[in-house]
Amino acid sequence: MRFFFDYISPYAYVGWHEALRLAKAHGRPLAPEPIVFAAVLNALGQKGPAEIPSKRVYTFKDAVRKAHRAGLPLVPPPSHPFNPLVALRATLLVPEAHRHRAVTALFDATWGGGGEGPHGVETEDAVRVALDGAGLQGADLVRRASDPSVKAELKARTAAAIELGVFGVPTIEVDGELFFGVDGLAFIPAFLAGDDPVPADAAARWADLPASATRVP
Amino acid sequence: MRFFFDYISPYAYVGWHEALRLAKAHGRPLAPEPIVFAAVLNALGQKGPAEIPSKRVYTFKDAVRKAHRAGLPLVPPPSHPFNPLVALRATLLVPEAHRHRAVTALFDATWGGGGEGPHGVETEDAVRVALDGAGLQGADLVRRASDPSVKAELKARTAAAIELGVFGVPTIEVDGELFFGVDGLAFIPAFLAGDDPVPADAAARWADLPASATRVP
Repeated sequence: MRFFFDYISPYAYVGWHEALRLAKAHGRPLAPEPIVFAAVLNALGQKGPAEIPSKRVYTFKDAVRKAHRAGLPLVPPPSHPFNPLVALRATLLVPEAHRHRAVTALFDATWGGGGEGPHGVETEDAVRVALDGAGLQGADLVRRASDPSVKAELKARTAAAIELGVFGVPTIEVDGELFFGVDGLAFIPAFLAGDDPVPADAAARWADLPASATRVP
Repeated sequence: MRFFFDYISPYAYVGWHEALRLAKAHGRPLAPEPIVFAAVLNALGQKGPAEIPSKRVYTFKDAVRKAHRAGLPLVPPPSHPFNPLVALRATLLVPEAHRHRAVTALFDATWGGGGEGPHGVETEDAVRVALDGAGLQGADLVRRASDPSVKAELKARTAAAIELGVFGVPTIEVDGELFFGVDGLAFIPAFLAGDDPVPADAAARWADLPASATRVP
């Protein structure tokens, strides 16, 4: 399973913890895939939930309810939106064996109340402290996060995710099928058990459904 | 409780059936509030789920999964998007005592496989047959649906919903609190029981959260 995410999203925070449980319960490997949500929105010409005033407050409330249901704390970071690029790039540099630990530490620093480090991941210092707290070489990872090759890799991975069909975060890919959002995760167990109710020809049938009216903005 | 909806949305179809159960279980009145989803999108400068190719197919699959979970059939209508205005306007004309029946008939004609009438509600004839099938005066309702006063009322109700904070369908309003989508409905029982985990000052606190970065499209 692959977990596409950006630290900017409280749903990705809740989804990450739920995906960890799901992967463990089903004995599946889980690969965290950092991507830039803002770049996804740019590519689709879409506004994010935090960019529509009425949706912004609703999204935070809804994320609190979903975190509570999952048994997780949810505390908003010092600012939002913030720049998640250092945190995302540093994540790419963490050796695979420690990557789960890094992602959990950075998500918890952003949305989980921050533990013992400073709250948020919007500064290089905050990212360093969160990674140090997870037993990783925070200073080294943050320093290398500004390498042009790392910047290019994050861009390329984001473009590949959009190409795959990712339109938001979190998205989980399981055996070629995408599941979106905290709520989409709930359907993965049935999918893994071969009980997905979606007809096999659904994608082709619905992609070809004719429009009989279109919106005139 | 008020249920804001448009027949265009498969989530509104699933949500309507779940809202009926919820209202019954809690002994609450449920007022269906037809609004024009396209006008909501226009007002917010946002794309609908069906207007982003990768999200379009996902949305239908996700709606099938949510319908299946709710024990409902879900069959796409003959075309999508279609023009839902006749169905929405006719709904406004149904006397309050019969309005649940009309909404259920039109939703089921759109997404439930159509029962005995023609599938969909995209023509005047289809709307008439669906309403006749519910024991209502379909021909009369469809004829009166083109009255300028009915058109104006649907517009005014849509504008009022946006003003209230509605950004999508379905949205349920309960004692002044909005819950969005099929998934938002799941949190209403806890809210009604006084167990909503959202802090009382959340809206004010989060609306004022500073941005430390903004997206440059």
